[in-house]
Amino acid sequence: MCSVCVATVKRGDIIDTRTFDCFGNVVQKPGDTLAKVKGDNPLIGPFYVEGAEPGDTLVVKILELTVDGNQGVAALTPGFGALNTTYYTPMLNAPVPEKIWFYPIDRARNEATFNALDSKFSTKIPLHPFLGCLGVAPALESRSSITPAEHGGNMDAPEASVGNTAYFPVNVRGALLFLGDGHAQMGDGEIAGTAIEVPMRARLQVSVIKGQKIAWPRFENSREIMALGAYRPLDDALRIAFTELIGWIHAETGLSELDAYQLLSQVGKVHVTEMVDPNYVVIASIDKKFLPPRKNHKPW
Amino acid sequence: MCSVCVATVKRGDIIDTRTFDCFGNVVQKPGDTLAKVKGDNPLIGPFYVEGAEPGDTLVVKILELTVDGNQGVAALTPGFGALNTTYYTPMLNAPVPEKIWFYPIDRARNEATFNALDSKFSTKIPLHPFLGCLGVAPALESRSSITPAEHGGNMDAPEASVGNTAYFPVNVRGALLFLGDGHAQMGDGEIAGTAIEVPMRARLQVSVIKGQKIAWPRFENSREIMALGAYRPLDDALRIAFTELIGWIHAETGLSELDAYQLLSQVGKVHVTEMVDPNYVVIASIDKKFLPPRKNHKPW
Amino acid sequence: MCSVCVATVKRGDIIDTRTFDCFGNVVQKPGDTLAKVKGDNPLIGPFYVEGAEPGDTLVVKILELTVDGNQGVAALTPGFGALNTTYYTPMLNAPVPEKIWFYPIDRARNEATFNALDSKFSTKIPLHPFLGCLGVAPALESRSSITPAEHGGNMDAPEASVGNTAYFPVNVRGALLFLGDGHAQMGDGEIAGTAIEVPMRARLQVSVIKGQKIAWPRFENSREIMALGAYRPLDDALRIAFTELIGWIHAETGLSELDAYQLLSQVGKVHVTEMVDPNYVVIASIDKKFLPPRKNHKPW
Amino acid sequence: MCSVCVATVKRGDIIDTRTFDCFGNVVQKPGDTLAKVKGDNPLIGPFYVEGAEPGDTLVVKILELTVDGNQGVAALTPGFGALNTTYYTPMLNAPVPEKIWFYPIDRARNEATFNALDSKFSTKIPLHPFLGCLGVAPALESRSSITPAEHGGNMDAPEASVGNTAYFPVNVRGALLFLGDGHAQMGDGEIAGTAIEVPMRARLQVSVIKGQKIAWPRFENSREIMALGAYRPLDDALRIAFTELIGWIHAETGLSELDAYQLLSQVGKVHVTEMVDPNYVVIASIDKKFLPPRKNHKPW
Repeated sequence: MCSVCVATVKRGDIIDTRTFDCFGNVVQKPGDTLAKVKGDNPLIGPFYVEGAEPGDTLVVKILELTVDGNQGVAALTPGFGALNTTYYTPMLNAPVPEKIWFYPIDRARNEATFNALDSKFSTKIPLHPFLGCLGVAPALESRSSITPAEHGGNMDAPEASVGNTAYFPVNVRGALLFLGDGHAQMGDGEIAGTAIEVPMRARLQVSVIKGQKIAWPRFENSREIMALGAYRPLDDALRIAFTELIGWIHAETGLSELDAYQLLSQVGKVHVTEMVDPNYVVIASIDKKFLPPRKNHKPW
Repeated sequence: MCSVCVATVKRGDIIDTRTFDCFGNVVQKPGDTLAKVKGDNPLIGPFYVEGAEPGDTLVVKILELTVDGNQGVAALTPGFGALNTTYYTPMLNAPVPEKIWFYPIDRARNEATFNALDSKFSTKIPLHPFLGCLGVAPALESRSSITPAEHGGNMDAPEASVGNTAYFPVNVRGALLFLGDGHAQMGDGEIAGTAIEVPMRARLQVSVIKGQKIAWPRFENSREIMALGAYRPLDDALRIAFTELIGWIHAETGLSELDAYQLLSQVGKVHVTEMVDPNYVVIASIDKKFLPPRKNHKPW
Repeated sequence: MCSVCVATVKRGDIIDTRTFDCFGNVVQKPGDTLAKVKGDNPLIGPFYVEGAEPGDTLVVKILELTVDGNQGVAALTPGFGALNTTYYTPMLNAPVPEKIWFYPIDRARNEATFNALDSKFSTKIPLHPFLGCLGVAPALESRSSITPAEHGGNMDAPEASVGNTAYFPVNVRGALLFLGDGHAQMGDGEIAGTAIEVPMRARLQVSVIKGQKIAWPRFENSREIMALGAYRPLDDALRIAFTELIGWIHAETGLSELDAYQLLSQVGKVHVTEMVDPNYVVIASIDKKFLPPRKNHKPW
Repeated sequence: MCSVCVATVKRGDIIDTRTFDCFGNVVQKPGDTLAKVKGDNPLIGPFYVEGAEPGDTLVVKILELTVDGNQGVAALTPGFGALNTTYYTPMLNAPVPEKIWFYPIDRARNEATFNALDSKFSTKIPLHPFLGCLGVAPALESRSSITPAEHGGNMDAPEASVGNTAYFPVNVRGALLFLGDGHAQMGDGEIAGTAIEVPMRARLQVSVIKGQKIAWPRFENSREIMALGAYRPLDDALRIAFTELIGWIHAETGLSELDAYQLLSQVGKVHVTEMVDPNYVVIASIDKKFLPPRKNHKPW
């Protein structure tokens, strides 16, 4: 059904797979440089989801994510990062140097160790593993695995983690799900350009909501609904995320758009997931306890 | 010492005062419109702080904040808000309508009630009272009480709340502290343009760090250090906040700037306090447990 | 050599072709709506250019452009435009209405007539025909014909007109040149979302500079060199355009980057071609009379 | 009538004065550094204009501008410029170095000479003298002479030159006109942070339009009307400039806003005057020949 797909899955099936780190697992030890990297964010997929057709919503429940190995890696890349000159924000200052940090990972303790390069300082960091890349085939364009957009992709969203369900617009028959770019842990904004990058073992369950058309990725768990916007500047990513969230609330509950706007002004949350990729990503969310019941009487 | 000051305080003194709400307390009941408002964010102050001189840091410890009354108010103002056309992002679409929401406040339960205007829905919202405006005299310009900038001002930062200490650059002799714009509760981004606006009773303790010059406001509590940036677009506010935080870490601990950059990429936090004022505000923070010890052996 | 190509051309060949207008020529008379449009910016091509290989520069000399017909069309599309709410700058205001303006075109006089919709006012507008879309296959992604980027595309640049030569990076063997979206005339910024949109007859001469790698499109005529940047916000498009121009000057003349920066601060020109497409486009230029001679003694 | 004013002028009076350069005339010869500068943009004024009251428009006709001396100066200042890291766009890259260029000026030929610092190249540049700073007292805030805003100020607009008339909102009794920051010549965007900075002799004629309230500065000459917007990012400066221009056209001619929007999409012009000051400045303009007659039958 899809000559380039790695597998076909049915609605309800569980995908159990392994992913490369963002560098294709080639940066392993002191002395390895980014020149070895053959292409950022090599992904696993696409998976063809039977029954998913344009106009539907793909549902991806994240069941399990495990760091695959005992080391993570992070890099400072000249031309990439929120606080240095970049390809799309070029300046005449001298570029920052390339640098690589290795993070030993203790899976039993669920923590990584940051070791400073310029001093002897080290510190332990608790892990929150997630998939930096998760998405479907775009509607019209084909996008790099570095780019987050309406189809998901390189959202670098810690929301793509165990306990959460992700929703994506289905743009082509079979949806064509892909994943990768495992992150053992990441700060808000991913400001230096990378998370603690790791290979990952992942278990995901896919399903489809027929006839529900959404425009941008969404997340949900038992406590919150979350809407994502991806563009530049952050201002527009935030506007997209919140208008999506307001549209979601309005559609499900009938609360008027301006009442939802007001309510979010008091209880909405903003998460800047990254400010380094070709598009910047903002997730707007609200705790379900503040929401009206759904029109269809289904529980939130 | 200062002809316009409401009081002179010594280092260590406690200021115990009351503030108006952002509308000067004139929007009180259904039918009241924003046309009654004589000027947004009327403030209390300035307070002259003895011993504070340019090049010092003013320290403001927030001891107590209590909503003064049993009602909050919020408004949708045409030309103001993150998701509607505004004075500085003008468009040709028809403006949104003026609307006012009143929030009954139950101080015993520490909660407000949101009542939808367009339906019968209502919901309870827990309160986190803080001062929307807190700051000192600017260095050179005089700024409106709507504008957050290097001097603090209308930061709309929930970080200006009990348990936190705020730091401001002292730009003029006496610092000239002012405060107001009490918020009973506010969502990230303050997207519809207001928080739950309330008069406030406030107790603050002021002191001065002699000879410590900072460029932008900072916050601190027992757990975190937080640096603020205020500008447009959000991208630049975020850059300011993080370069300030990196500078702070570097100065206090000796951790190199690039190591601090890397560490924050994994454990830094971003808080978009508001995206509606003339400058947008971002606060970048880090948990002290991830930091090296301070150079001077003082505990964090 | 290229199964999807419409023709193969040799270096030095002249392409003589006709293009559709941006609406596929389906909006022709009062009553026609945008609902008839099957996809914006249908393009002609791709043309396979023999001898063009990745790392080369494709040279496109624009020999002749003629409006094909005696009418142009322009539209206001809800969700598209610099001064109304859009897909990427969404707001809660009511959208602007869809409207269509028809422009009678007098080719003998080289002018169009603007007829107001809401009054009887009309005015004559002189024409400057150009190709809104001109470009090559992107390096990695495939992009919509609405998107301008490193590969050119929907640059909406009046610089793509008779007398000018355009340069594009060759990303794939054969370059894969395409063109379309004829504009009879357009104001700076293309602010309402369209130019005076017309079918076009076009004559272009293609050639290749072997082994010259460029990153972004460039233009040149006997008087000026021009470098293009495309991104959001305009600030970054401008930064890209000027750093490209400085790099060009530095590479060709040996003038230091900081001297070129200074010189452009006094004699550089900025052209905002459009602020409505997914990326905004800025062209930075300098009159050759201000430049040092080229290193290779070739005349500018 | 105004204790701080340098002079009181009547409507119709001509001001004949001299201004300092942006560095206070202290950077004069090789070896002089920016450390000598006591404050950027020292201005002349304020001038109290009799009969100007809040709600009026101040009219400033620029009669004559002459470079005062035979040398201009330009600087690259670390932390200031469109293509290097700045105070409001801070990054971790090493800052650019401070550099100063001196421009010999030949007033008889109306040209300056650019002499490269890093090579022997020099080139002649024709002059277009204008006032970088021209404005009135702000409405509420007091702003630095580095900041352009609603009151004019450091607009760095070549439109402030002989043959043009500038309009400013009167915010306080007497308007309080000030001027300075003479520029012998400047490129679009003033990208390296300065023009060719010179002391200037200036002759300006002031008058007042009673009861005409405008929001932002405007310019006019016999051929064009021009509206200015100043904010960040450039996108918003452009939106302000064009909505002001549309409002101007609509008010004077009755052309509907959407017809004006459409017309400007075909014949509007955009001038990015600077992208380096605290606010960025865009001027939108239209040739009067495209406009309907004025409602009051007065000629344009």
